[in-house]
Amino acid sequence: MKIRLMDRVLEANDAWARENRRFLAPRGAAMLNLIGSPGAGKTALLEKTIESLAGRLPVAVIEGDVATSRDAERIGRRGAPVVQINTGDGCHLGASAVHEALRELCATHAPRLVFVENVGNLICPAEFDLGEWGKIAVLSVAEGDDKVEKYPLLFSLSRALVITKLGMLPHTNFRMAEAERCFRRVNRNAPIIPLDSVTGDGFGPWIDFVERAAGTGRV
Amino acid sequence: MKIRLMDRVLEANDAWARENRRFLAPRGAAMLNLIGSPGAGKTALLEKTIESLAGRLPVAVIEGDVATSRDAERIGRRGAPVVQINTGDGCHLGASAVHEALRELCATHAPRLVFVENVGNLICPAEFDLGEWGKIAVLSVAEGDDKVEKYPLLFSLSRALVITKLGMLPHTNFRMAEAERCFRRVNRNAPIIPLDSVTGDGFGPWIDFVERAAGTGRV
Repeated sequence: MKIRLMDRVLEANDAWARENRRFLAPRGAAMLNLIGSPGAGKTALLEKTIESLAGRLPVAVIEGDVATSRDAERIGRRGAPVVQINTGDGCHLGASAVHEALRELCATHAPRLVFVENVGNLICPAEFDLGEWGKIAVLSVAEGDDKVEKYPLLFSLSRALVITKLGMLPHTNFRMAEAERCFRRVNRNAPIIPLDSVTGDGFGPWIDFVERAAGTGRV
Repeated sequence: MKIRLMDRVLEANDAWARENRRFLAPRGAAMLNLIGSPGAGKTALLEKTIESLAGRLPVAVIEGDVATSRDAERIGRRGAPVVQINTGDGCHLGASAVHEALRELCATHAPRLVFVENVGNLICPAEFDLGEWGKIAVLSVAEGDDKVEKYPLLFSLSRALVITKLGMLPHTNFRMAEAERCFRRVNRNAPIIPLDSVTGDGFGPWIDFVERAAGTGRV
């Protein structure tokens, strides 16, 4: 019973995800779905990314949170168009809510890249296609190098692994080689991009990656 | 339809939670349900807690993870009886799985305190009663001081807020006063216990708290 219903929820979601792809394709816009734990540094990554892409590529952001519009306010201050979705008790974004947000954003803007910041959660968001070009796993060094093995679905599905808070590395027991080894077990090809959103360290490869995503729809 | 089914899932869970309370009461054991993000430091907190309580209070641990038995192995090395529950794609522990684990633990041990380390997730675990004496919210300073406002349900329900990785504080922009202010808005009485599981800093108040929980069933 529980499983049948879950199938139906996923089917309805998938239909909206297809609708989102149909909506974005003629607009030449690629959508990236950022997924990571609470406090992984998703919003800080977006703030610095918006700054780096200013004048080069029009971006827009869809913010997903259980509560508050704190993240949308942070993004808005960087000058990017943003829509906040509050999920209430929902532990992930769904494709239909994202569809409404896309319509709202594209009514007044023409983004080439739409970043979705999903609800802070390594589990549920990985199961729901939003119509994105790719999922981006965001993991901070403060979380520990065992997280890839402990939450394998997200990491296996991701188009890139962004490892954040690089400057904090000396103050943690995070082993970069161990995280990479675990990631390669579940994901052969996606690039691993360590960076620091405060200093901008490592942003070169990340910005190259998102520009290629916007340019071709595939990297 | 979705809501009706969710109600039924919660009802079935609540029945098992009551069963767990009936099971624990005659054994004089209190159960604490630790909930926090991936990488919040829940396992490290338990490791140090087991060490601190050695010879004073018999404890047991139920480990909840999507995948791997890494955390159970860490706990086992500290000499505490432990049962690992893998949830597969489940984003939280349920009371029926916890019931089986309790029966297994109590068949061979007589714990006075049972720690449940829930799946790393600030959202879904808060909705499911496991029959615990209390939920303990675990938040690391690396996650940021905005998390209480962004994930209010867990923090409003918790019997204590443990703020971990205190030694990392100088390397973050976490403001202790801001986190406390936000917590007090949703939770008037639960103690706020900042600590560091590596150095043991702040463990005095935490150990007092869990000993009181074991002693009286209420603090």
